[in-house]
Amino acid sequence: MAVNLPPPDPQALYPVAGVELGIAMAGVRKPNRKDLLVLRLAPGAVVAGVFTSNRFCAAPVFLASKNLKTGKVVALVVNTGNANAGTGKDGLNRAQFVCGALAALLHCKPAQILPFSTGVIMEPLPVERIVAGLPAAIADLREGNWHAAAEAIMTTDTVPKAYSRRVKLAGGMAVVTGIAKGAGMIRPDMATMLGFVATDAKVSSAFLKKLAKTAADRSFNCVTVDGDTSTNDSFILMATGKGPSVASKKDLSILEKALTQVCQLLAQAIVRDGEGATKFVTVTVERGRNEAECRKIAYAIAHSPLVKTAFFASDPNLGRILAAIGYAGIKDLNTEKIDLHLDDVLVVRKGSRNPSYMEPLALAAMKKSEFTVRAVLNRGKAAATLWTCDLSFDYVKINAEYRT
Amino acid sequence: MAVNLPPPDPQALYPVAGVELGIAMAGVRKPNRKDLLVLRLAPGAVVAGVFTSNRFCAAPVFLASKNLKTGKVVALVVNTGNANAGTGKDGLNRAQFVCGALAALLHCKPAQILPFSTGVIMEPLPVERIVAGLPAAIADLREGNWHAAAEAIMTTDTVPKAYSRRVKLAGGMAVVTGIAKGAGMIRPDMATMLGFVATDAKVSSAFLKKLAKTAADRSFNCVTVDGDTSTNDSFILMATGKGPSVASKKDLSILEKALTQVCQLLAQAIVRDGEGATKFVTVTVERGRNEAECRKIAYAIAHSPLVKTAFFASDPNLGRILAAIGYAGIKDLNTEKIDLHLDDVLVVRKGSRNPSYMEPLALAAMKKSEFTVRAVLNRGKAAATLWTCDLSFDYVKINAEYRT
Repeated sequence: MAVNLPPPDPQALYPVAGVELGIAMAGVRKPNRKDLLVLRLAPGAVVAGVFTSNRFCAAPVFLASKNLKTGKVVALVVNTGNANAGTGKDGLNRAQFVCGALAALLHCKPAQILPFSTGVIMEPLPVERIVAGLPAAIADLREGNWHAAAEAIMTTDTVPKAYSRRVKLAGGMAVVTGIAKGAGMIRPDMATMLGFVATDAKVSSAFLKKLAKTAADRSFNCVTVDGDTSTNDSFILMATGKGPSVASKKDLSILEKALTQVCQLLAQAIVRDGEGATKFVTVTVERGRNEAECRKIAYAIAHSPLVKTAFFASDPNLGRILAAIGYAGIKDLNTEKIDLHLDDVLVVRKGSRNPSYMEPLALAAMKKSEFTVRAVLNRGKAAATLWTCDLSFDYVKINAEYRT
Repeated sequence: MAVNLPPPDPQALYPVAGVELGIAMAGVRKPNRKDLLVLRLAPGAVVAGVFTSNRFCAAPVFLASKNLKTGKVVALVVNTGNANAGTGKDGLNRAQFVCGALAALLHCKPAQILPFSTGVIMEPLPVERIVAGLPAAIADLREGNWHAAAEAIMTTDTVPKAYSRRVKLAGGMAVVTGIAKGAGMIRPDMATMLGFVATDAKVSSAFLKKLAKTAADRSFNCVTVDGDTSTNDSFILMATGKGPSVASKKDLSILEKALTQVCQLLAQAIVRDGEGATKFVTVTVERGRNEAECRKIAYAIAHSPLVKTAFFASDPNLGRILAAIGYAGIKDLNTEKIDLHLDDVLVVRKGSRNPSYMEPLALAAMKKSEFTVRAVLNRGKAAATLWTCDLSFDYVKINAEYRT
């Protein structure tokens, strides 16, 4: 049950000239399920990527980031059902095998393929089934396939995630369209789970790299479901150059804004569809000394199982939030300066209960499916925002029964 | 449903000469419930304490640590039902009021009383009810009251926690008896939730301080239920000097061992009775460069909601443990050297699945109510051990319904 997350309208997803997507049912883990995606780029496209900081990064992540550096990317290949992580050299061989097979079919070099996998960790990737599915995926390649692609990369997601924007640059209309998947093991540190965003704008490779970093920092790196940074997090930004050129600072800024919007919507969609989520909560920490301490406190709040179960129960047991702020690790934090707001209810003033605070006010805010927790440190000018969800019975159920 | 935690046998709890305990039902939060404890020390006793590192430390913690420095301690007063945390100056006034009332009844100074509170955060401490309960608690003061005292400090604990040891020093038999309470918001950083341990041995105040630190580091600082460091964690060690003197290094080592044992049993009991716990899991990280990195990785494993739900489900989805090791924040960690054992099953060898590993072996281990996760980093000689529990439906249920 995702929180206020209607399924995407396929009609509202603009195709990106120069990006074709093909889907197949390869039976990676379960039969009769879209689980294989091939995304082919027209010649001339540039690609940038941001990958997980997990030391146990998966074989495909290792290979995708390597291939991104060495060759002009021709295609991405994504399977669900198996993450090919914790699989050592054999896992790397298997990822290479998939790249080699797709390269042969697309008449390019294996190093021009970026592989991605998501699903169960530490099980051998069933390469035979994946390779057997490639011809069907290639036969299906079409520019209008974004919605089906969003479906094909789902694991425990309940709703496919896809957003699209059109913006006017000096040289004409440019399109930004992207897809992503969650839905657990989500606390992106360098990037998200899987996110693929493309534009037809013509941008240099150097600018695209910067755009990828900026967009990720403002979107995928601001969400957390359970604090678990995955082994497979990857965010890929592609620019085909089939549309208008980015010819000025203004164009760049317009494109950056559209990209960030699409990425934020995707990142928030991951949280809205967080495993077992019933609430979508924005956590903002303001007036800190620097962004790092604001993020540290925001993460302490957003990761506290006690805070998250209180969100689930709509229980304004807000002392739990104070406790999380207190143990976030800011050694010189003066708690007597801290204010805490729940939406526009001032709960804590100068470190203790606001005398005019009445619990029914907070209760009303928390009963909503979306609300904001805002901690004001009153010791500086920095701020940070995270998006998170609650911890429900269903989170436990989903993760206790994931593989059965 | 605590994990292998039989209730203490009142007969097996040795009284400590010079420590009297009195219990009352003060109706702090709910009527007809033991919720007030007065512990009186005979003149000459020495006391040491270790307190929470949470910046939002509660009013009683602030006052107890202050009074511990300034005066000879005459008594401890403990209430459950209300933590008197996040309550600012008013909370401090209320804690002082309780100390003043007890001091008047015991004919000592308010600064000779150590106050402790546990329960709901950010609500005003009902001092009238607590003060009204003091005479009954004082009338009840007896050396044989340890079991009732363990009951009186429970909050969401399902089993009272009390242990006792007798050891032979050169000058005769000494007794160590202690009680503690959990059961959520448990990730002690400087100490435990509430733990009170007493001995009749005669020890100097300076030695007692060291003993308190050592015992806490090896017990209460090695457990985690949910990663939430409480605002009220306090561990108090008392030595009445009514028994034999600690006259030699050997005596000190014997006493230290007994103290550490009692503290470890109490700390493990807190985990066994962790909110919703169905499994008691020992997490050991070995052959790291230093203890700090071993603890960091052990905490990453023990705090991961995905790992904890897999424990709950007895699901050997052990890639989740690898992922937690990978994101623990050890930047130069070489994952290709890591071995992972579940009890004596070698699951991961040199960073990837052990070729001879078969899932039924791990499944059999995880189905037990107690097992060990052992990660071997193969990069040094340091090690660390934590005790933790799983994340079950009941954890969510207990915390979603805590105040209702």
